[in-house]
Amino acid sequence: MKSINQLTRSRALQAFVAPRLQTTQIPATNRLWKRCFSATPATASNQPGIDPLKLTITKTTTPKELIPAKDLVFGSTFTDHMLSIEWTAAGGWKSPQIVPYQNLSLDPSSCVFHYAFECFEGMKAYKDSKGQIRFFRPDKNMERLNKSSARIALPTFDGEALTKLIGEFVKLDSRFIPDARGYSLYLRPTMIGTQKTLGVGPPGSALLFVIASPVGPYYPTGFKAISLEATDYAVRAWPGGVGDKKLGANYAPCILPQLEAASRGFQQNLWLFGEEEYVTEVGTMNLFIALKNKETGQNELVTAPLDGTILEGVTRDSVLGLAKERLVPQGWTVSERKIRMADIVEASAEGRLLEVFGSGTAAIVSPVRSISYQGKMVDCGLKDNEEAGAIALQMKNWIEGIQYGDEEHPWSFTL
Amino acid sequence: MKSINQLTRSRALQAFVAPRLQTTQIPATNRLWKRCFSATPATASNQPGIDPLKLTITKTTTPKELIPAKDLVFGSTFTDHMLSIEWTAAGGWKSPQIVPYQNLSLDPSSCVFHYAFECFEGMKAYKDSKGQIRFFRPDKNMERLNKSSARIALPTFDGEALTKLIGEFVKLDSRFIPDARGYSLYLRPTMIGTQKTLGVGPPGSALLFVIASPVGPYYPTGFKAISLEATDYAVRAWPGGVGDKKLGANYAPCILPQLEAASRGFQQNLWLFGEEEYVTEVGTMNLFIALKNKETGQNELVTAPLDGTILEGVTRDSVLGLAKERLVPQGWTVSERKIRMADIVEASAEGRLLEVFGSGTAAIVSPVRSISYQGKMVDCGLKDNEEAGAIALQMKNWIEGIQYGDEEHPWSFTL
Repeated sequence: MKSINQLTRSRALQAFVAPRLQTTQIPATNRLWKRCFSATPATASNQPGIDPLKLTITKTTTPKELIPAKDLVFGSTFTDHMLSIEWTAAGGWKSPQIVPYQNLSLDPSSCVFHYAFECFEGMKAYKDSKGQIRFFRPDKNMERLNKSSARIALPTFDGEALTKLIGEFVKLDSRFIPDARGYSLYLRPTMIGTQKTLGVGPPGSALLFVIASPVGPYYPTGFKAISLEATDYAVRAWPGGVGDKKLGANYAPCILPQLEAASRGFQQNLWLFGEEEYVTEVGTMNLFIALKNKETGQNELVTAPLDGTILEGVTRDSVLGLAKERLVPQGWTVSERKIRMADIVEASAEGRLLEVFGSGTAAIVSPVRSISYQGKMVDCGLKDNEEAGAIALQMKNWIEGIQYGDEEHPWSFTL
Repeated sequence: MKSINQLTRSRALQAFVAPRLQTTQIPATNRLWKRCFSATPATASNQPGIDPLKLTITKTTTPKELIPAKDLVFGSTFTDHMLSIEWTAAGGWKSPQIVPYQNLSLDPSSCVFHYAFECFEGMKAYKDSKGQIRFFRPDKNMERLNKSSARIALPTFDGEALTKLIGEFVKLDSRFIPDARGYSLYLRPTMIGTQKTLGVGPPGSALLFVIASPVGPYYPTGFKAISLEATDYAVRAWPGGVGDKKLGANYAPCILPQLEAASRGFQQNLWLFGEEEYVTEVGTMNLFIALKNKETGQNELVTAPLDGTILEGVTRDSVLGLAKERLVPQGWTVSERKIRMADIVEASAEGRLLEVFGSGTAAIVSPVRSISYQGKMVDCGLKDNEEAGAIALQMKNWIEGIQYGDEEHPWSFTL
C-alpha cells in the first residue's frame, strides 16, 4: 500500500505544485514574525488559465421571484444563477460556466469536508443613480483570493479574467440588485478542494464558484453604535499562522467567543493578542481607533499593522487611503501600528479617545460605543446621543459615494 | 434588513446554543494558556439525541468489487455504504440512516464551504484471528469528536449511541475488511455544518456522516525510518487556539510546510513552537523522544504535554499508558513535558538520544532517523542498518497485539 508520505512526495504532485507556488527562500532562523508565502498565478505555468472567451451560459427555466428590499436578510437568498469553474492538477482550469443556482454534488471524501481546503471573498456590485452596475476595487479581492488559495495549496488564477466573468454573471442577474442607496448585490467567490481521497496532501482538483445575494444596508435606520467584549481567553490568529488569509479555517473557531460575548449582551468580541494585549480585530472586521496622540497631541487614526495576524481588509485599505489623502491635510496622523488595550483604556480615561470603529465589506464602518475589558466598561468617546463619530460618518459617506459613483474615482467602475 | 449581529444575538439561536454548551466560567484575566471550552452532550438537553433504535438501512443494489489488498491506497476507495445522521437546531438529531455510499448534495451557501464548520475522527475496525471484528478505544474518538464539535458550535451527541451505529455499519460492510495482519477498515466519522446562509454564526443544521475505507499496513515491507525538516517559519497551533481539536481548520494550512519539507527530500515536517522552539508535532502525528535524561541518567520517554497546542492523539495516549504500565517497571521515566529542539540536538551530540518516533492512527508508530534543523542534520539514534528503535518496535507490537485481539485488553472489544 502506498503511504500518505509517498503520495505527498510523488513526482506528479511536485510537478504541479512547483510551478504554481513561488515560495520565499526561507533561511533557517528562529524569526516567527515573517510572512513567508507568496503566490504567482496558475497562468504563469503551462496549464490552461481561466478563459472568459470559453464561458458557456445555461439560463434558468424557473426564475425566482424578487424578495421585497425591506425583507432582505444578509446572505440568505440568492440569485437565479451561479458561476462555476473546475480545476484539475492535470488539466488546469476548465471552461467557465454560468448555470442555474443549484446544489453542489460532492463525494463525501472530498477534501473540503475534512481538511478545510476552502477560501473565499466578499465583494459587492452596486447600481448607481444612472442604473449602471458598478464594482468597487475587485482587483483587491482577486489579489487576496489568490494569496488565500496559494497558502492552502489550491490553484491560483488570473484575477482580471475572473473579474470579467463575475461581471457577466452580475449582468445576467442584474434584476436582483435593488435600485436604492445602501443596497447591493453581495458576491461570494469561493474556492474549495474537491479531491476525493482522505490522504492529507495538496488537492488534485478544485472548484471555484461565485454565488450572489441581494443585500440591504447594514444599518437600515442609521448607525447604531455597538459594544464589544475584549476576548483574552481565546486567540484568533498568531504570527506564522494564517490569520491574514481569508480561509474558512479562520471563521468557525470564532463563533464560540462571539456567542460568549453575545450571552453577556455584547454585539461583537474584540480580539486581543499576546501578553501585551494588542488590539487586533473586532469580530470579523478590522478596527480603527481615533485618538489624540499622548506625545504629540495631534489627532491620530490608528489601525493594527499587517503583521500576518490581521486580515488585509479591502475596506481597511480604503479607509487608510482616504485618511492619508483627505485627513492628513486636516492635521491628522494616520498610523498602522500596534496599539495595546491598555493604551485605549488610558486614552479613554484621559479624554483623548475620539472614536473607535470597525471596518468591513458588510457595514463599511461600524461605530463602537464601549468595550468591556477586565470587568470594566471603556467608553470609546461617543456622546450619549451620538451613534457614530465624525470620522466614521465621513468615511462611510466617502466610500459609499465612490461605490455608488456619486464621486468618480479609480476604485469604482461600471461594468 | 437584519444584520449579522442581530442574527447572532437572536433569542432563537441563544436558546439552542445555551443548553448544548457548558463553558467554563472565564475570569477576565490575561492568561492565554488556559483551555476554556468543554462540552456536554446534546442529549443532556431536551432535544432528541442520536437513537440507534431508529436506524434505517437501505442496502446498495450495486455492490462494489473488492480491491486486491496489495493495491489498497489509504483513503481512496470506500465501502458500499455510509452512515448518515442529520441534526437541526429546532429538532435535534433525526433518525440515523445507513444508505448506499453516495455524493452529498449541498447548497453552495452551506457554511461548511465558507467557514470550515467541520471536524472529524480517524479510527479503525480490525478482523482478529477468529474472524471477529474489533474496535480499538472508540470511546476516545467519540469524546474527542464531541470536544471538536462543541468548539465550533456544532452539536454534541451520545458517543455510545454513535459507536453502536458505526458497529452496525461496519458489520454490514465487513466483507471489505481485509483478513490479514496490518490490514483494517479505516473509519472516518465527520461532522459538517449545513446551514444555507452566509451570515457568520452558529450553524442551525448539521450532518454527521461516517465513511469507511479498507487500508493496508503503513509500512507493508517493515518499518522505514523517516527524516524530518524542523519548521520554524510557520506555526501550526497557538495557546488559546484550536490546535488540540480535530478540526478541518488545522489541516489545510499544514500542506505548504509539508510540501516545502518534501521539496528538500524530507518525509514530514516537525513543528516547533515559540522562541524556545518547543517540539510539538510531526506532520499530522504526535512525537515521542526516548533519551537518557541529562540529570538523572535514567531512560526517559518524553512527549509534549496537552497544553492546548497538541492534538490529543488516541495512539499518543495508548503509548503513554503502555509505557507507564510496562516500561516504568523496567526503569524508564515517562514524561509529558515541554522539550526544546536544542535539548534534542544536545542529547544527540552527547550520545544520549536513544530514538524518536511519531505516533498516529495510520502508522501506529513512525520511526525517525534524522531531523534537519538550522541547516544541520540531527541524528536520532538509529544505527545505519536499523529502521526502528526498540521502543517503537515494542509499542507497535503491543498496540497491534491489542488491536487484533492477540492480547485481551479493555481497549479492544469485538462487535
